[in-house]
Amino acid sequence: MGRIIILRIGHRFFRDQRVTTHVCLTARALGADGVIIADHEDKIVESTIRELTSRFGGPFTVHSGTPWRKAVKDWQAEGGRVVHLTAYGLPLPKMIPEIQNSGRDVMVVVGSEKMPGEMFKLADWNISVTSQPMSEIAALAVFLDWYKEHSAFVQEFSGSRLRIVPSKDGKEIQQVPG
Amino acid sequence: MGRIIILRIGHRFFRDQRVTTHVCLTARALGADGVIIADHEDKIVESTIRELTSRFGGPFTVHSGTPWRKAVKDWQAEGGRVVHLTAYGLPLPKMIPEIQNSGRDVMVVVGSEKMPGEMFKLADWNISVTSQPMSEIAALAVFLDWYKEHSAFVQEFSGSRLRIVPSKDGKEIQQVPG
Repeated sequence: MGRIIILRIGHRFFRDQRVTTHVCLTARALGADGVIIADHEDKIVESTIRELTSRFGGPFTVHSGTPWRKAVKDWQAEGGRVVHLTAYGLPLPKMIPEIQNSGRDVMVVVGSEKMPGEMFKLADWNISVTSQPMSEIAALAVFLDWYKEHSAFVQEFSGSRLRIVPSKDGKEIQQVPG
Repeated sequence: MGRIIILRIGHRFFRDQRVTTHVCLTARALGADGVIIADHEDKIVESTIRELTSRFGGPFTVHSGTPWRKAVKDWQAEGGRVVHLTAYGLPLPKMIPEIQNSGRDVMVVVGSEKMPGEMFKLADWNISVTSQPMSEIAALAVFLDWYKEHSAFVQEFSGSRLRIVPSKDGKEIQQVPG
Protein backbone atom coordinates (compact mmCIF):
# COMPACT_ATOMS: atom_id res chain seq x y z
CA MET A 1 0.00 0.00 0.00
CA GLY A 2 1.32 3.44 -0.94
CA ARG A 3 1.76 6.57 1.12
CA ILE A 4 -1.19 8.43 2.60
CA ILE A 5 -1.04 12.18 3.16
CA ILE A 6 -3.89 14.30 4.52
CA LEU A 7 -4.48 17.75 3.02
CA ARG A 8 -6.34 19.96 5.48
CA ILE A 9 -8.02 22.86 3.62
CA GLY A 10 -9.64 25.91 5.24
CA HIS A 11 -7.42 26.15 8.31
CA ARG A 12 -7.36 29.58 9.91
CA PHE A 13 -4.65 30.59 12.38
CA PHE A 14 -5.75 30.38 16.04
CA ARG A 15 -9.46 29.79 15.36
CA ASP A 16 -8.94 26.35 13.82
CA GLN A 17 -5.94 25.14 15.78
CA ARG A 18 -7.86 22.66 17.91
CA VAL A 19 -9.83 21.13 15.04
CA THR A 20 -6.68 20.92 12.89
CA THR A 21 -4.81 19.31 15.78
CA HIS A 22 -7.61 16.71 15.97
CA VAL A 23 -7.13 16.09 12.23
CA CYS A 24 -3.39 15.56 12.77
CA LEU A 25 -3.86 13.23 15.79
CA THR A 26 -6.40 11.19 13.83
CA ALA A 27 -4.13 10.97 10.80
CA ARG A 28 -1.16 9.82 12.85
CA ALA A 29 -2.98 7.33 15.11
CA LEU A 30 -4.82 5.73 12.19
CA GLY A 31 -1.80 5.20 10.00
CA ALA A 32 -1.39 8.15 7.63
CA ASP A 33 2.15 9.30 6.86
CA GLY A 34 1.60 13.00 7.34
CA VAL A 35 -0.55 16.12 7.10
CA ILE A 36 -0.25 19.22 4.93
CA ILE A 37 -2.11 22.25 6.33
CA ALA A 38 -3.00 24.25 3.22
CA ASP A 39 -2.54 27.97 2.59
CA HIS A 40 -1.86 29.20 6.10
CA GLU A 41 1.42 28.64 7.89
CA ASP A 42 0.88 27.54 11.49
CA LYS A 43 4.05 26.84 13.43
CA ILE A 44 2.09 26.22 16.64
CA VAL A 45 0.18 23.22 15.30
CA GLU A 46 3.35 22.00 13.56
CA SER A 47 5.36 22.08 16.78
CA THR A 48 2.57 20.47 18.83
CA ILE A 49 2.44 17.51 16.47
CA ARG A 50 6.24 17.24 16.07
CA GLU A 51 6.72 17.22 19.84
CA LEU A 52 4.05 14.53 20.21
CA THR A 53 5.67 12.46 17.44
CA SER A 54 9.06 12.74 19.17
CA ARG A 55 7.49 11.31 22.34
CA PHE A 56 5.17 8.66 20.92
CA GLY A 57 6.98 7.79 17.69
CA GLY A 58 6.70 8.12 13.98
CA PRO A 59 7.44 8.56 11.20
CA PHE A 60 4.85 11.32 10.76
CA THR A 61 5.29 14.62 8.94
CA VAL A 62 3.45 17.91 9.26
CA HIS A 63 3.85 20.97 7.03
CA SER A 64 1.79 24.10 6.65
CA GLY A 65 1.39 26.93 4.17
CA THR A 66 1.37 25.17 0.78
CA PRO A 67 -1.37 26.60 -1.48
CA TRP A 68 -4.09 23.96 -1.66
CA ARG A 69 -4.33 23.83 -5.46
CA LYS A 70 -0.56 23.43 -5.80
CA ALA A 71 -0.53 20.63 -3.22
CA VAL A 72 -3.24 18.73 -5.12
CA LYS A 73 -1.77 19.27 -8.58
CA ASP A 74 1.78 18.39 -7.52
CA TRP A 75 0.47 15.19 -5.93
CA GLN A 76 -1.39 14.17 -9.07
CA ALA A 77 1.57 15.14 -11.32
CA GLU A 78 3.69 12.66 -9.35
CA GLY A 79 1.16 9.90 -9.97
CA GLY A 80 -0.77 10.10 -6.69
CA ARG A 81 -4.54 9.94 -6.43
CA VAL A 82 -6.78 12.33 -4.51
CA VAL A 83 -9.77 11.42 -2.33
CA HIS A 84 -11.95 14.32 -1.20
CA LEU A 85 -14.13 13.50 1.82
CA THR A 86 -17.49 15.25 1.56
CA ALA A 87 -21.04 14.42 2.60
CA TYR A 88 -22.01 15.04 -1.06
CA GLY A 89 -19.78 12.28 -2.46
CA LEU A 90 -20.29 8.64 -3.36
CA PRO A 91 -20.64 6.16 -0.48
CA LEU A 92 -17.43 4.86 1.10
CA PRO A 93 -18.57 1.20 1.18
CA LYS A 94 -19.25 1.23 -2.56
CA MET A 95 -16.05 3.01 -3.58
CA ILE A 96 -13.38 1.71 -1.17
CA PRO A 97 -12.35 -1.31 -3.29
CA GLU A 98 -11.63 0.91 -6.30
CA ILE A 99 -9.52 3.27 -4.18
CA GLN A 100 -7.62 0.42 -2.53
CA ASN A 101 -7.01 -1.30 -5.85
CA SER A 102 -5.56 1.82 -7.48
CA GLY A 103 -2.22 0.93 -5.90
CA ARG A 104 -1.25 4.61 -5.84
CA ASP A 105 -0.21 7.01 -3.15
CA VAL A 106 -3.37 8.66 -1.80
CA MET A 107 -3.96 12.23 -0.67
CA VAL A 108 -7.08 12.58 1.50
CA VAL A 109 -8.56 16.09 1.38
CA VAL A 110 -10.61 17.29 4.35
CA GLY A 111 -12.03 20.73 4.93
CA SER A 112 -15.11 22.50 6.01
CA GLU A 113 -18.28 23.89 4.54
CA LYS A 114 -16.17 26.48 2.74
CA MET A 115 -14.40 23.93 0.51
CA PRO A 116 -13.75 25.49 -2.94
CA GLY A 117 -16.12 24.05 -5.58
CA GLU A 118 -13.12 23.37 -7.80
CA MET A 119 -12.00 20.65 -5.37
CA PHE A 120 -14.96 18.48 -6.39
CA LYS A 121 -13.65 18.49 -10.00
CA LEU A 122 -9.97 18.07 -9.20
CA ALA A 123 -10.49 15.06 -6.92
CA ASP A 124 -10.20 11.58 -8.36
CA TRP A 125 -12.91 10.52 -5.94
CA ASN A 126 -15.45 12.49 -3.88
CA ILE A 127 -16.34 10.14 -1.05
CA SER A 128 -18.98 10.37 1.66
CA VAL A 129 -18.83 8.84 5.11
CA THR A 130 -22.62 8.86 5.35
CA SER A 131 -24.65 11.44 3.35
CA GLN A 132 -25.26 13.44 6.52
CA PRO A 133 -23.78 16.63 7.93
CA MET A 134 -20.53 15.27 9.35
CA SER A 135 -17.38 16.10 11.22
CA GLU A 136 -14.38 15.99 8.88
CA ILE A 137 -12.39 14.49 11.75
CA ALA A 138 -14.87 11.62 12.06
CA ALA A 139 -15.01 11.13 8.29
CA LEU A 140 -11.22 10.95 8.16
CA ALA A 141 -11.14 8.44 11.02
CA VAL A 142 -13.62 6.07 9.39
CA PHE A 143 -12.00 6.44 5.97
CA LEU A 144 -8.53 5.58 7.31
CA ASP A 145 -9.84 2.64 9.35
CA TRP A 146 -11.48 1.18 6.23
CA TYR A 147 -8.68 2.05 3.80
CA LYS A 148 -5.97 0.56 6.05
CA GLU A 149 -8.22 -2.38 6.94
CA HIS A 150 -7.89 -1.75 10.69
CA SER A 151 -4.10 -2.16 10.59
CA ALA A 152 -3.65 0.90 12.86
CA PHE A 153 -4.63 -1.36 15.77
CA VAL A 154 -1.45 -3.39 15.31
CA GLN A 155 1.00 -0.85 13.90
CA GLU A 156 4.25 -0.02 15.71
CA PHE A 157 5.78 3.43 15.80
CA SER A 158 9.54 3.96 15.56
CA GLY A 159 11.65 6.06 17.87
CA SER A 160 9.07 6.47 20.60
CA ARG A 161 10.14 7.45 24.10
CA LEU A 162 6.76 6.66 25.68
CA ARG A 163 4.36 3.80 25.19
CA ILE A 164 0.82 3.43 26.54
CA VAL A 165 0.12 -0.05 27.94
CA PRO A 166 -3.53 -1.12 27.54
CA SER A 167 -5.21 -1.34 30.93
CA LYS A 168 -8.58 -2.43 32.26
CA ASP A 169 -9.11 0.61 34.47
CA GLY A 170 -5.89 2.54 34.93
CA LYS A 171 -3.40 4.77 33.17
CA GLU A 172 -0.19 2.89 32.46
CA ILE A 173 2.57 4.51 30.48
CA GLN A 174 6.06 3.09 29.98
CA GLN A 175 9.38 4.69 29.16
CA VAL A 176 10.85 2.98 26.13
CA PRO A 177 14.50 2.02 26.75
CA GLY A 178 16.93 3.35 24.17
CA MET B 1 -29.47 -3.51 19.69
CA GLY B 2 -30.22 -1.10 22.52
CA ARG B 3 -29.98 2.66 22.70
CA ILE B 4 -26.67 4.48 22.42
CA ILE B 5 -26.13 7.81 24.15
CA ILE B 6 -22.89 9.79 24.13
CA LEU B 7 -21.79 11.57 27.31
CA ARG B 8 -19.43 14.42 26.49
CA ILE B 9 -17.39 15.35 29.59
CA GLY B 10 -15.18 18.42 29.98
CA HIS B 11 -17.14 20.80 27.75
CA ARG B 12 -16.51 24.47 28.46
CA PHE B 13 -18.84 27.17 27.21
CA PHE B 14 -17.60 28.95 24.07
CA ARG B 15 -14.09 27.45 24.03
CA ASP B 16 -15.28 23.89 23.32
CA GLN B 17 -18.34 24.58 21.18
CA ARG B 18 -16.78 23.53 17.91
CA VAL B 19 -15.27 20.31 19.23
CA THR B 20 -18.51 19.43 21.03
CA THR B 21 -20.46 20.17 17.85
CA HIS B 22 -18.16 17.72 16.03
CA VAL B 23 -18.96 15.15 18.73
CA CYS B 24 -22.69 15.68 18.19
CA LEU B 25 -22.46 15.50 14.37
CA THR B 26 -20.43 12.31 14.62
CA ALA B 27 -22.87 10.76 17.07
CA ARG B 28 -25.89 11.56 14.91
CA ALA B 29 -24.39 10.57 11.54
CA LEU B 30 -23.02 7.29 12.87
CA GLY B 31 -26.22 6.13 14.51
CA ALA B 32 -26.24 7.15 18.16
CA ASP B 33 -29.56 8.24 19.66
CA GLY B 34 -28.36 11.38 21.39
CA VAL B 35 -25.71 13.33 23.29
CA ILE B 36 -25.57 14.58 26.86
CA ILE B 37 -23.15 17.47 27.39
CA ALA B 38 -22.13 17.10 31.02
CA ASP B 39 -21.93 19.76 33.73
CA HIS B 40 -22.20 22.91 31.63
CA GLU B 41 -25.40 24.06 30.03
CA ASP B 42 -24.86 25.20 26.44
CA LYS B 43 -28.00 26.34 24.64
CA ILE B 44 -25.99 27.38 21.58
CA VAL B 45 -24.71 23.88 20.82
CA GLU B 46 -28.14 22.44 21.68
CA SER B 47 -29.93 24.72 19.23
CA THR B 48 -27.34 24.15 16.47
CA ILE B 49 -27.88 20.40 16.67
CA ARG B 50 -31.67 20.62 17.04
CA GLU B 51 -31.93 22.88 14.00
CA LEU B 52 -29.75 20.48 11.99
CA THR B 53 -31.87 17.52 13.12
CA SER B 54 -35.04 19.33 12.08
CA ARG B 55 -33.58 19.78 8.58
CA PHE B 56 -31.84 16.43 8.05
CA GLY B 57 -33.92 14.18 10.26
CA GLY B 58 -33.82 12.24 13.47
CA PRO B 59 -34.63 11.12 16.01
CA PHE B 60 -31.63 12.58 17.82
CA THR B 61 -31.60 14.22 21.25
CA VAL B 62 -29.21 16.70 22.82
CA HIS B 63 -29.19 17.91 26.40
CA SER B 64 -26.64 19.82 28.44
CA GLY B 65 -25.91 20.55 32.06
CA THR B 66 -26.38 17.17 33.77
CA PRO B 67 -23.58 16.53 36.29
CA TRP B 68 -21.37 13.85 34.73
CA ARG B 69 -21.37 11.48 37.74
CA LYS B 70 -25.15 11.62 38.00
CA ALA B 71 -25.53 10.90 34.27
CA VAL B 72 -23.30 7.83 34.57
CA LYS B 73 -24.86 6.49 37.77
CA ASP B 74 -28.44 7.03 36.59
CA TRP B 75 -27.62 5.18 33.36
CA GLN B 76 -26.15 2.23 35.24
CA ALA B 77 -29.00 2.21 37.77
CA GLU B 78 -31.42 1.74 34.86
CA GLY B 79 -29.42 -1.26 33.61
CA GLY B 80 -27.32 0.48 30.98
CA ARG B 81 -23.63 -0.15 30.44
CA VAL B 82 -20.90 2.48 30.16
CA VAL B 83 -18.01 2.49 27.68
CA HIS B 84 -15.29 5.07 28.34
CA LEU B 85 -13.14 5.79 25.29
CA THR B 86 -9.54 6.45 26.32
CA ALA B 87 -6.13 5.78 24.78
CA TYR B 88 -5.27 3.97 28.06
CA GLY B 89 -8.02 1.37 27.71
CA LEU B 90 -8.20 -2.15 26.31
CA PRO B 91 -8.12 -2.51 22.51
CA LEU B 92 -11.42 -2.07 20.66
CA PRO B 93 -10.94 -5.12 18.39
CA LYS B 94 -10.47 -7.38 21.41
CA MET B 95 -13.38 -6.00 23.45
CA ILE B 96 -16.07 -5.18 20.90
CA PRO B 97 -17.74 -8.63 20.91
CA GLU B 98 -18.23 -8.48 24.68
CA ILE B 99 -19.77 -5.01 24.45
CA GLN B 100 -22.05 -5.98 21.57
CA ASN B 101 -23.11 -9.18 23.30
CA SER B 102 -24.10 -7.40 26.51
CA GLY B 103 -27.46 -6.59 24.92
CA ARG B 104 -27.75 -3.47 27.06
CA ASP B 105 -28.20 0.19 26.31
CA VAL B 106 -24.74 1.72 26.01
CA MET B 107 -23.47 5.11 27.15
CA VAL B 108 -20.23 6.12 25.41
CA VAL B 109 -18.17 8.57 27.44
CA VAL B 110 -15.76 10.88 25.64
CA GLY B 111 -13.76 13.71 27.07
CA SER B 112 -10.34 15.21 27.07
CA GLU B 113 -7.06 14.90 28.89
CA LYS B 114 -8.79 16.27 31.97
CA MET B 115 -11.12 13.26 32.40
CA PRO B 116 -11.69 12.62 36.15
CA GLY B 117 -9.75 9.55 37.29
CA GLU B 118 -12.96 8.22 38.89
CA MET B 119 -14.37 7.67 35.39
CA PHE B 120 -11.90 4.85 34.77
CA LYS B 121 -13.37 2.99 37.78
CA LEU B 122 -17.04 3.75 37.10
CA ALA B 123 -16.91 2.59 33.46
CA ASP B 124 -17.90 -0.97 32.64
CA TRP B 125 -15.28 -0.88 29.91
CA ASN B 126 -12.33 1.44 29.26
CA ILE B 127 -11.70 1.07 25.54
CA SER B 128 -8.89 2.36 23.32
CA VAL B 129 -9.12 3.17 19.64
CA THR B 130 -5.36 2.69 19.24
CA SER B 131 -3.04 3.21 22.22
CA GLN B 132 -1.92 6.54 20.80
CA PRO B 133 -2.75 10.16 21.60
CA MET B 134 -6.07 10.47 19.84
CA SER B 135 -8.94 12.77 18.98
CA GLU B 136 -12.04 11.84 20.97
CA ILE B 137 -14.11 12.67 17.87
CA ALA B 138 -12.14 10.13 15.82
CA ALA B 139 -12.30 7.54 18.59
CA LEU B 140 -16.07 7.97 18.81
CA ALA B 141 -16.42 7.65 15.03
CA VAL B 142 -14.48 4.40 14.84
CA PHE B 143 -16.21 2.98 17.92
CA LEU B 144 -19.70 3.68 16.53
CA ASP B 145 -18.80 2.30 13.09
CA TRP B 146 -17.63 -0.96 14.68
CA TYR B 147 -20.36 -1.20 17.31
CA LYS B 148 -23.14 -0.58 14.78
CA GLU B 149 -21.41 -2.82 12.21
CA HIS B 150 -21.42 -0.07 9.56
CA SER B 151 -25.20 0.21 9.63
CA ALA B 152 -24.98 4.03 9.57
CA PHE B 153 -24.26 3.79 5.85
CA VAL B 154 -27.76 2.46 5.23
CA GLN B 155 -29.80 4.08 8.00
CA GLU B 156 -32.74 6.34 7.19
CA PHE B 157 -33.65 9.41 9.23
CA SER B 158 -37.26 10.34 9.94
CA GLY B 159 -38.85 13.72 9.39
CA SER B 160 -36.08 15.20 7.25
CA ARG B 161 -36.77 18.20 5.05
CA LEU B 162 -33.49 17.89 3.14
CA ARG B 163 -31.65 14.91 1.73
CA ILE B 164 -28.16 14.79 0.20
CA VAL B 165 -28.00 12.71 -2.98
CA PRO B 166 -24.62 10.98 -3.49
CA SER B 167 -22.82 12.49 -6.46
CA LYS B 168 -19.62 11.81 -8.38
CA ASP B 169 -18.43 15.41 -8.43
CA GLY B 170 -21.26 17.79 -7.51
CA LYS B 171 -23.41 18.97 -4.63
CA GLU B 172 -26.93 17.63 -4.95
CA ILE B 173 -29.46 18.25 -2.25
CA GLN B 174 -33.18 17.42 -2.48
CA GLN B 175 -36.19 18.80 -0.69
CA VAL B 176 -38.09 15.96 0.88
CA PRO B 177 -41.82 16.18 0.06
CA GLY B 178 -43.94 16.23 3.14
